[in-house]
Amino acid sequence: MSPANGISGIDRGYIIPIGGAEEKLHNPEILDRFVDVCGGKQSRIGIIPTASELEDTGRNYEKLFRKLGVKHAKVLSFITREDCQSGPDIGYIEKCDGVFMTGGNQLRLSTTLGGTTVAQLIRRRNAVGMHVAGTSAGAAFMPEHMIAGGSEGSTPSPDMVTMAPGLGLTNACIIDQHFRQRDRIGRLLTALAYNPFAIGIGLDEDTAAFIRAGDQLEVVGSGGITVIDPTDLGYSSMDRARRGEPVSLIGVKLHILVSGGRYDIAARKAFAE
Amino acid sequence: MSPANGISGIDRGYIIPIGGAEEKLHNPEILDRFVDVCGGKQSRIGIIPTASELEDTGRNYEKLFRKLGVKHAKVLSFITREDCQSGPDIGYIEKCDGVFMTGGNQLRLSTTLGGTTVAQLIRRRNAVGMHVAGTSAGAAFMPEHMIAGGSEGSTPSPDMVTMAPGLGLTNACIIDQHFRQRDRIGRLLTALAYNPFAIGIGLDEDTAAFIRAGDQLEVVGSGGITVIDPTDLGYSSMDRARRGEPVSLIGVKLHILVSGGRYDIAARKAFAE
Repeated sequence: MSPANGISGIDRGYIIPIGGAEEKLHNPEILDRFVDVCGGKQSRIGIIPTASELEDTGRNYEKLFRKLGVKHAKVLSFITREDCQSGPDIGYIEKCDGVFMTGGNQLRLSTTLGGTTVAQLIRRRNAVGMHVAGTSAGAAFMPEHMIAGGSEGSTPSPDMVTMAPGLGLTNACIIDQHFRQRDRIGRLLTALAYNPFAIGIGLDEDTAAFIRAGDQLEVVGSGGITVIDPTDLGYSSMDRARRGEPVSLIGVKLHILVSGGRYDIAARKAFAE
Repeated sequence: MSPANGISGIDRGYIIPIGGAEEKLHNPEILDRFVDVCGGKQSRIGIIPTASELEDTGRNYEKLFRKLGVKHAKVLSFITREDCQSGPDIGYIEKCDGVFMTGGNQLRLSTTLGGTTVAQLIRRRNAVGMHVAGTSAGAAFMPEHMIAGGSEGSTPSPDMVTMAPGLGLTNACIIDQHFRQRDRIGRLLTALAYNPFAIGIGLDEDTAAFIRAGDQLEVVGSGGITVIDPTDLGYSSMDRARRGEPVSLIGVKLHILVSGGRYDIAARKAFAE
């Protein structure tokens, strides 16, 4: 785990978490932009449908990418841990320009891919330029520390969030999705309050964070991204509050960014455009 | 977060998680060995009492280390986040041979030290040779993924364990303590089942894992260490089980090691002596 080491002179690939429910028919801005980043119509895109329980989720994205003009889009059959250790589709990741992880349940991704050849390979290839996008559960799974579940509501409280190790593409931020639609600021604040080292990224539906090498984030899509920066957190009662009690946090910085907005995760600075 | 980068030619310092309740008076084998590793009586040891709510926890360890012959043992006053960002005791870590974190509540450690100068400095200094020991809560806090709390019992079940980001000295293992005494195998299995990438280390009381550079573990003390290796996990129902339901796991490897036993975390191999 942890992001794989890069190679000097080669840029890391993009990390592109999407808040779920991205537009697919009229003006699919996020998916279009992902295809552009991967190199356009000639690019090779692998689709990981593992999070979903629906049989046609992967095939639907395959059709969608083909409709957007992508010649080589392929569903990768990573259903069991064995598939992810030695299955025939592993080799495809070696030659992909981009990988797309669908929605579903992020714990299915972590229990199936965690610790396998596929997880290692995605980290290694991302470190040398392969782009990785994920929507909903696929977005939640991306960071080192993953939000596996939790309750709705805006006030943080102990045990409001279930955390688990994620894929480990980045350890600079913790990601939550369907953010405004499911009132998740409380659980993201809770995750950050446990250990205020990371930046919180709350993604609304149909909204993506395009994070390029050097931890430079740009907002794409119709909703907003809530950025939570605990750098100056002066006081927290997280260690004393009991289950169900509200937690006091003093000095958290918050930004709401919309389409075209940018955030420098490394320097912790926001820009409206 | 994540272990700091090492420097070629310089060994990383030991990481020494202790299961709590280590012997302090008659034959304090673990503390003696820690002092030896740090360089003996001339060594400089910093004590971090942040996990504890009792005022004299730090001073008691200071006396204890002095009784063991250590000339320079000092309690570091890291009570608030401000202390950990710019307090007068930060400089002491620059010149320590070893740091010792006391027991208490690991969430107090992560909420107070997380993301601060002190946390960064401990990681950086450990990467170039400073040794870090921690008992009970101090042990739980050490890895990238920390067990913050959970329920007793031997069968894994969703939500049986609360995880949070830890100090990040290692991402090769997840650590639990007071292991046999508080029946914690179920919650450690749960933590591993979320994402089976790491090795689980369950430490009995008065038992320590001396982990030297290269992830080589040796058991010291009167109890046992339970090592859980999910490398060959073939099946897990973690993604489907509901709160309170037991989780099925097939193919987990388990070792019980006692004093003198060794484990190569990198190669995932156990040796009885």
